[in-house]
Amino acid sequence: MTDEIARREVKALVFDVFGTVVDWRTSLIEDLSQWAKSKKIDADWTALVDAWREAYVPSMNEVRNNAAKGFVKLDVLHRQSLDKLIERFDIKGLSEADRDHINRGWHRLKPWPDSVPGLTRLKTKFIISPLSNGNVILLTNMAKNAGLPWDLILGSEIFEHFKPDPETYLGAARLLSMSPGEVMMVAAHNGDLKAAQSHGLKTAFVPRPGEYGPHQKRDFEATGEWTMVVKDLNDLAARLGC
Amino acid sequence: MTDEIARREVKALVFDVFGTVVDWRTSLIEDLSQWAKSKKIDADWTALVDAWREAYVPSMNEVRNNAAKGFVKLDVLHRQSLDKLIERFDIKGLSEADRDHINRGWHRLKPWPDSVPGLTRLKTKFIISPLSNGNVILLTNMAKNAGLPWDLILGSEIFEHFKPDPETYLGAARLLSMSPGEVMMVAAHNGDLKAAQSHGLKTAFVPRPGEYGPHQKRDFEATGEWTMVVKDLNDLAARLGC
Repeated sequence: MTDEIARREVKALVFDVFGTVVDWRTSLIEDLSQWAKSKKIDADWTALVDAWREAYVPSMNEVRNNAAKGFVKLDVLHRQSLDKLIERFDIKGLSEADRDHINRGWHRLKPWPDSVPGLTRLKTKFIISPLSNGNVILLTNMAKNAGLPWDLILGSEIFEHFKPDPETYLGAARLLSMSPGEVMMVAAHNGDLKAAQSHGLKTAFVPRPGEYGPHQKRDFEATGEWTMVVKDLNDLAARLGC
Repeated sequence: MTDEIARREVKALVFDVFGTVVDWRTSLIEDLSQWAKSKKIDADWTALVDAWREAYVPSMNEVRNNAAKGFVKLDVLHRQSLDKLIERFDIKGLSEADRDHINRGWHRLKPWPDSVPGLTRLKTKFIISPLSNGNVILLTNMAKNAGLPWDLILGSEIFEHFKPDPETYLGAARLLSMSPGEVMMVAAHNGDLKAAQSHGLKTAFVPRPGEYGPHQKRDFEATGEWTMVVKDLNDLAARLGC
Protein backbone atom coordinates (compact mmCIF):
# COMPACT_ATOMS: atom_id res chain seq x y z
CA MET A 1 0.00 0.00 0.00
CA THR A 2 2.84 2.39 0.77
CA ASP A 3 4.23 1.51 -2.68
CA GLU A 4 1.09 3.08 -4.16
CA ILE A 5 1.47 6.20 -2.02
CA ALA A 6 5.08 6.52 -3.17
CA ARG A 7 4.12 6.06 -6.85
CA ARG A 8 1.45 8.72 -6.49
CA GLU A 9 3.30 11.32 -4.41
CA VAL A 10 7.04 11.02 -5.02
CA LYS A 11 8.60 13.18 -7.75
CA ALA A 12 12.28 12.95 -6.91
CA LEU A 13 14.53 10.26 -5.46
CA VAL A 14 17.65 11.31 -3.58
CA PHE A 15 20.28 8.71 -2.81
CA ASP A 16 22.85 8.13 -0.18
CA VAL A 17 25.96 7.28 -2.22
CA PHE A 18 28.78 5.70 -0.16
CA GLY A 19 27.53 2.18 0.51
CA THR A 20 24.10 2.61 -1.08
CA VAL A 21 25.07 3.29 -4.72
CA VAL A 22 28.80 2.49 -4.71
CA ASP A 23 30.75 -0.31 -3.03
CA TRP A 24 33.40 1.95 -1.52
CA ARG A 25 35.25 -0.74 0.44
CA THR A 26 35.89 -3.35 -2.26
CA SER A 27 36.54 -0.84 -4.99
CA LEU A 28 38.89 1.33 -2.95
CA ILE A 29 40.90 -1.67 -1.70
CA GLU A 30 41.23 -3.00 -5.27
CA ASP A 31 42.01 0.40 -6.78
CA LEU A 32 44.75 1.20 -4.26
CA SER A 33 46.22 -2.33 -4.16
CA GLN A 34 46.61 -2.43 -7.94
CA TRP A 35 48.06 1.06 -8.11
CA ALA A 36 50.49 0.37 -5.23
CA LYS A 37 51.63 -2.86 -6.87
CA SER A 38 52.48 -0.99 -10.07
CA LYS A 39 54.36 1.60 -8.00
CA LYS A 40 55.98 -1.07 -5.79
CA ILE A 41 54.61 0.54 -2.64
CA ASP A 42 53.99 -1.97 0.10
CA ALA A 43 51.17 -1.49 2.62
CA ASP A 44 48.11 -3.19 4.10
CA TRP A 45 45.56 -1.36 1.94
CA THR A 46 42.62 -3.30 3.34
CA ALA A 47 43.43 -2.15 6.85
CA LEU A 48 44.11 1.38 5.64
CA VAL A 49 40.77 1.62 3.83
CA ASP A 50 38.90 0.33 6.90
CA ALA A 51 40.72 2.80 9.16
CA TRP A 52 40.10 5.60 6.66
CA ARG A 53 36.35 4.97 6.73
CA GLU A 54 36.45 4.78 10.55
CA ALA A 55 37.78 8.35 10.54
CA TYR A 56 34.86 9.54 8.38
CA VAL A 57 32.14 10.22 10.95
CA PRO A 58 34.51 11.70 13.59
CA SER A 59 35.97 14.06 10.95
CA MET A 60 32.49 15.33 10.00
CA ASN A 61 31.57 15.69 13.67
CA GLU A 62 34.61 17.90 14.17
CA VAL A 63 33.39 20.20 11.40
CA ARG A 64 29.88 20.21 12.88
CA ASN A 65 31.21 21.05 16.35
CA ASN A 66 33.39 23.86 15.00
CA ALA A 67 30.83 25.41 12.67
CA ALA A 68 32.18 28.91 13.37
CA LYS A 69 35.37 27.91 11.55
CA GLY A 70 33.35 27.30 8.40
CA PHE A 71 32.41 24.23 6.43
CA VAL A 72 35.13 21.82 5.26
CA LYS A 73 34.46 19.66 2.21
CA LEU A 74 34.90 15.89 2.29
CA ASP A 75 37.90 15.82 -0.09
CA VAL A 76 39.80 17.90 2.49
CA LEU A 77 38.65 15.75 5.43
CA HIS A 78 39.64 12.59 3.53
CA ARG A 79 43.07 14.05 2.87
CA GLN A 80 43.62 15.08 6.49
CA SER A 81 42.69 11.57 7.65
CA LEU A 82 44.86 9.99 4.94
CA ASP A 83 47.93 11.96 5.94
CA LYS A 84 47.59 10.73 9.52
CA LEU A 85 47.06 7.12 8.37
CA ILE A 86 50.09 7.19 6.08
CA GLU A 87 52.13 8.06 9.15
CA ARG A 88 50.39 5.50 11.38
CA PHE A 89 50.83 2.74 8.77
CA ASP A 90 54.42 3.89 8.18
CA ILE A 91 54.06 4.01 4.39
CA LYS A 92 57.23 5.47 2.87
CA GLY A 93 58.07 7.22 -0.37
CA LEU A 94 54.71 8.80 -1.26
CA SER A 95 54.95 12.04 -3.23
CA GLU A 96 52.34 14.80 -3.07
CA ALA A 97 50.98 13.53 -6.40
CA ASP A 98 50.74 10.00 -4.94
CA ARG A 99 48.80 11.24 -1.92
CA ASP A 100 46.46 13.19 -4.18
CA HIS A 101 45.94 10.11 -6.36
CA ILE A 102 45.10 7.98 -3.31
CA ASN A 103 42.72 10.63 -1.99
CA ARG A 104 40.93 10.75 -5.33
CA GLY A 105 40.27 7.04 -4.98
CA TRP A 106 36.92 8.18 -3.54
CA HIS A 107 36.18 9.75 -6.95
CA ARG A 108 36.78 6.37 -8.62
CA LEU A 109 34.45 4.16 -6.58
CA LYS A 110 32.56 1.44 -8.43
CA PRO A 111 28.78 0.97 -8.33
CA TRP A 112 27.00 -2.11 -7.03
CA PRO A 113 25.86 -4.27 -10.00
CA ASP A 114 22.24 -3.08 -9.82
CA SER A 115 23.02 0.63 -9.40
CA VAL A 116 23.46 1.80 -13.02
CA PRO A 117 20.56 -0.26 -14.48
CA GLY A 118 18.30 0.63 -11.54
CA LEU A 119 19.07 4.36 -11.70
CA THR A 120 18.65 4.36 -15.48
CA ARG A 121 15.15 2.93 -15.09
CA LEU A 122 14.25 5.27 -12.22
CA LYS A 123 15.42 8.30 -14.24
CA THR A 124 12.65 7.69 -16.80
CA LYS A 125 9.93 8.63 -14.29
CA PHE A 126 11.68 10.52 -11.50
CA ILE A 127 14.31 13.17 -10.94
CA ILE A 128 17.29 11.33 -9.45
CA SER A 129 20.12 12.90 -7.48
CA PRO A 130 22.71 11.96 -4.91
CA LEU A 131 22.15 13.48 -1.47
CA SER A 132 25.56 12.70 -0.12
CA ASN A 133 28.18 13.93 2.30
CA GLY A 134 30.55 13.88 -0.66
CA ASN A 135 31.48 17.19 -2.21
CA VAL A 136 30.30 18.24 -5.65
CA ILE A 137 33.42 17.42 -7.68
CA LEU A 138 33.83 14.07 -5.92
CA LEU A 139 30.25 13.09 -6.83
CA THR A 140 30.56 14.52 -10.36
CA ASN A 141 33.79 12.68 -11.13
CA MET A 142 32.36 9.50 -9.61
CA ALA A 143 29.28 9.78 -11.82
CA LYS A 144 31.39 10.24 -14.96
CA ASN A 145 33.71 7.33 -14.03
CA ALA A 146 30.97 4.96 -13.00
CA GLY A 147 28.25 5.97 -15.46
CA LEU A 148 25.76 7.07 -12.79
CA PRO A 149 23.05 8.92 -14.75
CA TRP A 150 22.15 11.61 -12.16
CA ASP A 151 19.90 14.48 -13.24
CA LEU A 152 21.70 16.83 -10.86
CA ILE A 153 24.28 16.66 -8.07
CA LEU A 154 23.36 17.54 -4.50
CA GLY A 155 26.43 17.36 -2.28
CA SER A 156 26.88 18.45 1.32
CA GLU A 157 29.01 21.39 0.15
CA ILE A 158 25.95 23.05 -1.41
CA PHE A 159 24.22 23.09 1.97
CA GLU A 160 27.43 23.56 3.99
CA HIS A 161 26.13 20.81 6.23
CA PHE A 162 26.64 17.07 6.48
CA LYS A 163 23.86 14.54 6.91
CA PRO A 164 22.06 13.98 9.25
CA ASP A 165 21.77 17.77 9.70
CA PRO A 166 18.24 18.95 8.73
CA GLU A 167 19.71 21.50 6.27
CA THR A 168 20.63 18.66 3.89
CA TYR A 169 17.24 16.92 3.63
CA LEU A 170 15.22 20.13 3.71
CA GLY A 171 17.73 21.88 1.44
CA ALA A 172 17.29 19.15 -1.18
CA ALA A 173 13.50 19.60 -1.12
CA ARG A 174 13.92 23.38 -1.31
CA LEU A 175 16.27 23.26 -4.34
CA LEU A 176 13.92 20.79 -6.03
CA SER A 177 10.99 23.17 -5.30
CA MET A 178 9.09 20.26 -3.76
CA SER A 179 7.48 19.54 -0.43
CA PRO A 180 9.52 17.05 1.66
CA GLY A 181 6.84 14.40 1.05
CA GLU A 182 7.46 14.58 -2.70
CA VAL A 183 11.08 13.53 -2.15
CA MET A 184 12.15 9.99 -1.27
CA MET A 185 15.48 9.33 0.46
CA VAL A 186 17.01 6.01 -0.63
CA ALA A 187 19.70 4.61 1.64
CA ALA A 188 21.32 1.47 3.00
CA HIS A 189 21.56 3.13 6.41
CA ASN A 190 18.65 3.21 8.82
CA GLY A 191 20.06 6.29 10.56
CA ASP A 192 20.00 8.33 7.37
CA LEU A 193 16.39 7.29 6.72
CA LYS A 194 15.36 8.07 10.29
CA ALA A 195 16.64 11.64 9.92
CA ALA A 196 15.04 12.04 6.47
CA GLN A 197 11.72 10.70 7.78
CA SER A 198 11.76 13.09 10.74
CA HIS A 199 11.78 15.97 8.23
CA GLY A 200 8.88 14.57 6.21
CA LEU A 201 10.72 12.84 3.35
CA LYS A 202 9.59 9.46 2.13
CA THR A 203 12.09 6.65 2.68
CA ALA A 204 13.36 3.51 0.95
CA PHE A 205 15.77 1.05 2.54
CA VAL A 206 18.13 -0.98 0.33
CA PRO A 207 20.14 -3.59 2.22
CA ARG A 208 23.87 -3.64 1.45
CA PRO A 209 25.01 -6.25 3.97
CA GLY A 210 28.47 -6.46 2.38
CA GLU A 211 29.25 -2.75 2.60
CA TYR A 212 31.71 -3.06 5.49
CA GLY A 213 32.92 -6.57 4.57
CA PRO A 214 33.65 -8.63 7.70
CA HIS A 215 33.28 -5.49 9.83
CA GLN A 216 29.57 -4.88 9.11
CA LYS A 217 27.82 -4.37 12.44
CA ARG A 218 24.45 -2.86 11.54
CA ASP A 219 22.00 -2.15 8.72
CA PHE A 220 21.59 -5.81 7.77
CA GLU A 221 17.90 -5.07 7.57
CA ALA A 222 15.33 -2.29 7.90
CA THR A 223 14.81 -1.25 11.52
CA GLY A 224 12.20 1.50 10.98
CA GLU A 225 8.81 1.99 9.41
CA TRP A 226 10.12 3.06 6.03
CA THR A 227 7.88 3.85 3.07
CA MET A 228 9.51 1.01 1.13
CA VAL A 229 12.00 -1.77 1.82
CA VAL A 230 13.46 -3.08 -1.44
CA LYS A 231 15.95 -5.74 -2.50
CA ASP A 232 18.07 -3.46 -4.68
CA LEU A 233 17.67 -0.51 -7.08
CA ASN A 234 16.17 -2.68 -9.83
CA ASP A 235 13.55 -3.83 -7.36
CA LEU A 236 12.91 -0.18 -6.39
CA ALA A 237 12.46 0.70 -10.08
CA ALA A 238 10.03 -2.18 -10.63
CA ARG A 239 7.94 -1.35 -7.59
CA LEU A 240 7.79 2.33 -8.56
CA GLY A 241 6.48 1.35 -12.00
CA CYS A 242 9.64 2.08 -14.04
CA MET B 1 46.64 29.59 -30.13
CA THR B 2 44.06 30.32 -27.48
CA ASP B 3 42.30 27.12 -28.61
CA GLU B 4 45.42 25.24 -27.47
CA ILE B 5 45.46 27.04 -24.13
CA ALA B 6 41.81 26.15 -23.61
CA ARG B 7 42.41 22.51 -24.54
CA ARG B 8 45.31 22.33 -22.08
CA GLU B 9 43.84 24.24 -19.14
CA VAL B 10 40.06 23.98 -19.19
CA LYS B 11 38.46 21.13 -17.21
CA ALA B 12 34.85 22.28 -17.03
CA LEU B 13 32.54 24.20 -19.33
CA VAL B 14 29.67 26.18 -17.82
CA PHE B 15 26.91 27.45 -20.08
CA ASP B 16 24.53 30.31 -20.16
CA VAL B 17 21.21 28.62 -20.95
CA PHE B 18 18.46 31.07 -22.07
CA GLY B 19 19.49 32.01 -25.60
CA THR B 20 22.79 30.13 -25.63
CA VAL B 21 21.57 26.54 -25.25
CA VAL B 22 17.81 26.91 -25.72
CA ASP B 23 15.81 29.04 -28.14
CA TRP B 24 13.48 30.48 -25.50
CA ARG B 25 11.60 32.87 -27.81
CA THR B 26 10.51 30.54 -30.63
CA SER B 27 9.83 27.59 -28.36
CA LEU B 28 7.85 29.56 -25.80
CA ILE B 29 5.73 31.30 -28.46
CA GLU B 30 4.98 27.92 -30.12
CA ASP B 31 4.35 26.12 -26.84
CA LEU B 32 1.91 28.74 -25.55
CA SER B 33 0.18 29.34 -28.89
CA GLN B 34 -0.55 25.63 -29.35
CA TRP B 35 -1.73 25.20 -25.78
CA ALA B 36 -3.94 28.33 -25.96
CA LYS B 37 -5.47 27.14 -29.23
CA SER B 38 -6.45 23.82 -27.63
CA LYS B 39 -7.93 25.74 -24.66
CA LYS B 40 -9.57 28.35 -26.94
CA ILE B 41 -7.78 31.19 -25.13
CA ASP B 42 -7.13 34.13 -27.39
CA ALA B 43 -4.07 36.36 -26.91
CA ASP B 44 -1.03 37.78 -28.70
CA TRP B 45 1.44 35.24 -27.35
CA THR B 46 4.34 36.61 -29.39
CA ALA B 47 3.94 40.03 -27.80
CA LEU B 48 3.42 38.49 -24.39
CA VAL B 49 6.60 36.40 -24.62
CA ASP B 50 8.63 39.43 -25.75
CA ALA B 51 7.22 41.54 -22.91
CA TRP B 52 7.82 38.70 -20.44
CA ARG B 53 11.49 38.57 -21.40
CA GLU B 54 11.73 42.35 -21.15
CA ALA B 55 10.69 42.08 -17.51
CA TYR B 56 13.48 39.57 -16.81
CA VAL B 57 16.48 41.83 -16.12
CA PRO B 58 14.47 44.43 -14.16
CA SER B 59 12.97 41.68 -11.99
CA MET B 60 16.44 40.35 -11.12
CA ASN B 61 17.71 43.85 -10.46
CA GLU B 62 14.91 44.34 -7.96
CA VAL B 63 16.04 41.23 -6.07
CA ARG B 64 19.67 42.44 -6.21
CA ASN B 65 18.71 45.87 -4.92
CA ASN B 66 16.65 44.40 -2.08
CA ALA B 67 19.10 41.73 -1.01
CA ALA B 68 18.10 42.14 2.64
CA LYS B 69 14.68 40.69 1.74
CA GLY B 70 16.38 37.48 0.63
CA PHE B 71 16.90 35.79 -2.70
CA VAL B 72 13.91 35.11 -4.96
CA LYS B 73 14.13 32.27 -7.48
CA LEU B 74 13.41 32.81 -11.16
CA ASP B 75 10.22 30.70 -11.22
CA VAL B 76 8.73 33.16 -8.73
CA LEU B 77 9.95 36.23 -10.65
CA HIS B 78 8.57 34.78 -13.88
CA ARG B 79 5.21 34.25 -12.21
CA GLN B 80 5.08 37.76 -10.75
CA SER B 81 5.81 39.22 -14.21
CA LEU B 82 3.31 36.89 -15.87
CA ASP B 83 0.49 37.89 -13.54
CA LYS B 84 1.07 41.55 -14.40
CA LEU B 85 1.20 40.77 -18.13
CA ILE B 86 -2.01 38.75 -18.05
CA GLU B 87 -3.69 41.85 -16.68
CA ARG B 88 -1.96 44.21 -19.14
CA PHE B 89 -2.86 41.97 -22.12
CA ASP B 90 -6.37 41.54 -20.70
CA ILE B 91 -6.35 37.74 -21.01
CA LYS B 92 -9.49 36.32 -19.45
CA GLY B 93 -10.49 33.01 -17.98
CA LEU B 94 -7.12 31.66 -16.82
CA SER B 95 -7.26 29.37 -13.80
CA GLU B 96 -4.43 28.99 -11.27
CA ALA B 97 -3.50 25.73 -13.01
CA ASP B 98 -3.39 27.57 -16.37
CA ARG B 99 -1.10 30.26 -14.99
CA ASP B 100 1.18 27.62 -13.50
CA HIS B 101 1.25 25.77 -16.83
CA ILE B 102 2.17 28.95 -18.71
CA ASN B 103 4.87 29.78 -16.15
CA ARG B 104 6.37 26.31 -16.53
CA GLY B 105 6.77 27.03 -20.23
CA TRP B 106 10.31 28.05 -19.25
CA HIS B 107 10.85 24.44 -18.10
CA ARG B 108 9.84 23.21 -21.58
CA LEU B 109 12.15 25.32 -23.76
CA LYS B 110 13.65 23.64 -26.81
CA PRO B 111 17.38 23.49 -27.59
CA TRP B 112 19.03 25.00 -30.68
CA PRO B 113 19.73 22.21 -33.22
CA ASP B 114 23.45 21.98 -32.34
CA SER B 115 22.98 22.02 -28.54
CA VAL B 116 22.33 18.36 -27.74
CA PRO B 117 24.92 16.93 -30.18
CA GLY B 118 27.50 19.57 -29.18
CA LEU B 119 27.01 19.03 -25.44
CA THR B 120 27.09 15.26 -25.87
CA ARG B 121 30.50 15.54 -27.55
CA LEU B 122 31.82 18.04 -25.00
CA LYS B 123 30.73 15.79 -22.13
CA THR B 124 33.20 13.10 -23.24
CA LYS B 125 36.20 15.28 -22.28
CA PHE B 126 34.85 17.97 -19.96
CA ILE B 127 32.51 18.43 -17.06
CA ILE B 128 29.52 20.34 -18.45
CA SER B 129 27.01 22.33 -16.45
CA PRO B 130 24.57 25.17 -16.88
CA LEU B 131 25.55 28.38 -15.06
CA SER B 132 22.23 30.06 -15.39
CA ASN B 133 19.93 32.52 -13.68
CA GLY B 134 17.33 29.78 -13.85
CA ASN B 135 16.53 27.93 -10.65
CA VAL B 136 17.46 24.31 -10.08
CA ILE B 137 14.11 22.64 -10.84
CA LEU B 138 13.61 24.80 -13.94
CA LEU B 139 17.01 23.73 -15.31
CA THR B 140 16.52 20.09 -14.24
CA ASN B 141 13.09 19.79 -15.86
CA MET B 142 14.39 21.55 -18.98
CA ALA B 143 17.28 19.09 -19.21
CA LYS B 144 14.95 16.10 -18.91
CA ASN B 145 12.50 17.51 -21.47
CA ALA B 146 15.13 18.60 -23.97
CA GLY B 147 17.70 15.82 -23.45
CA LEU B 148 20.48 18.17 -22.30
CA PRO B 149 23.15 15.81 -20.92
CA TRP B 150 24.47 17.99 -18.05
CA ASP B 151 26.84 16.43 -15.52
CA LEU B 152 25.45 18.66 -12.79
CA ILE B 153 23.10 21.63 -12.43
CA LEU B 154 24.41 24.99 -11.25
CA GLY B 155 21.53 27.44 -10.93
CA SER B 156 21.48 30.93 -9.43
CA GLU B 157 19.50 29.61 -6.47
CA ILE B 158 22.53 27.63 -5.24
CA PHE B 159 24.55 30.84 -5.00
CA GLU B 160 21.57 33.04 -4.04
CA HIS B 161 22.84 35.48 -6.65
CA PHE B 162 22.06 36.19 -10.28
CA LYS B 163 24.66 36.69 -12.99
CA PRO B 164 26.60 38.90 -13.45
CA ASP B 165 27.25 38.92 -9.67
CA PRO B 166 30.74 37.55 -8.91
CA GLU B 167 29.29 34.94 -6.52
CA THR B 168 27.93 32.97 -9.49
CA TYR B 169 31.14 32.65 -11.56
CA LEU B 170 33.40 32.20 -8.53
CA GLY B 171 30.85 29.96 -6.83
CA ALA B 172 30.86 27.64 -9.84
CA ALA B 173 34.65 27.35 -9.72
CA ARG B 174 34.52 26.75 -5.96
CA LEU B 175 31.91 23.98 -6.19
CA LEU B 176 33.91 22.39 -9.03
CA SER B 177 37.07 22.61 -6.84
CA MET B 178 38.84 24.33 -9.73
CA SER B 179 40.69 27.58 -10.23
CA PRO B 180 38.64 30.08 -12.29
CA GLY B 181 41.05 29.57 -15.21
CA GLU B 182 40.13 25.89 -15.38
CA VAL B 183 36.49 26.83 -16.05
CA MET B 184 35.22 28.20 -19.37
CA MET B 185 32.02 30.24 -19.54
CA VAL B 186 30.15 29.65 -22.81
CA ALA B 187 27.55 32.28 -23.73
CA ALA B 188 25.82 34.10 -26.56
CA HIS B 189 26.01 37.32 -24.52
CA ASN B 190 29.12 39.47 -24.45
CA GLY B 191 28.12 40.95 -21.08
CA ASP B 192 28.06 37.54 -19.41
CA LEU B 193 31.50 36.73 -20.82
CA LYS B 194 32.90 40.10 -19.75
CA ALA B 195 31.88 39.44 -16.15
CA ALA B 196 33.19 35.85 -16.26
CA GLN B 197 36.50 37.03 -17.72
CA SER B 198 36.91 39.70 -15.05
CA HIS B 199 36.88 36.89 -12.46
CA GLY B 200 39.48 34.80 -14.30
CA LEU B 201 37.27 32.33 -16.17
CA LYS B 202 38.02 31.41 -19.75
CA THR B 203 35.37 32.47 -22.25
CA ALA B 204 33.72 31.22 -25.44
CA PHE B 205 31.26 33.26 -27.50
CA VAL B 206 28.57 31.48 -29.53
CA PRO B 207 26.52 33.79 -31.76
CA ARG B 208 22.76 33.33 -31.58
CA PRO B 209 21.63 36.21 -33.77
CA GLY B 210 18.04 34.92 -33.85
CA GLU B 211 17.59 34.78 -30.09
CA TYR B 212 15.37 37.87 -29.89
CA GLY B 213 13.83 37.45 -33.35
CA PRO B 214 13.20 40.85 -34.98
CA HIS B 215 14.01 42.57 -31.67
CA GLN B 216 17.66 41.50 -31.48
CA LYS B 217 19.75 44.61 -30.76
CA ARG B 218 23.13 43.28 -29.67
CA ASP B 219 25.37 40.22 -29.48
CA PHE B 220 25.40 39.66 -33.23
CA GLU B 221 29.11 39.09 -32.84
CA ALA B 222 31.91 38.91 -30.28
CA THR B 223 32.82 42.33 -28.90
CA GLY B 224 35.57 41.29 -26.47
CA GLU B 225 38.85 39.41 -26.44
CA TRP B 226 37.33 36.04 -25.62
CA THR B 227 39.36 32.84 -25.34
CA MET B 228 37.36 31.38 -28.23
CA VAL B 229 34.73 32.56 -30.69
CA VAL B 230 32.88 29.59 -32.21
CA LYS B 231 30.10 29.03 -34.74
CA ASP B 232 28.00 26.79 -32.52
CA LEU B 233 28.40 24.04 -29.89
CA ASN B 234 29.49 21.46 -32.46
CA ASP B 235 32.25 23.83 -33.56
CA LEU B 236 33.24 24.33 -29.91
CA ALA B 237 33.43 20.55 -29.46
CA ALA B 238 35.56 20.11 -32.59
CA ARG B 239 37.97 22.88 -31.64
CA LEU B 240 38.32 21.48 -28.10
CA GLY B 241 39.26 18.09 -29.56
CA CYS B 242 36.01 16.25 -28.78
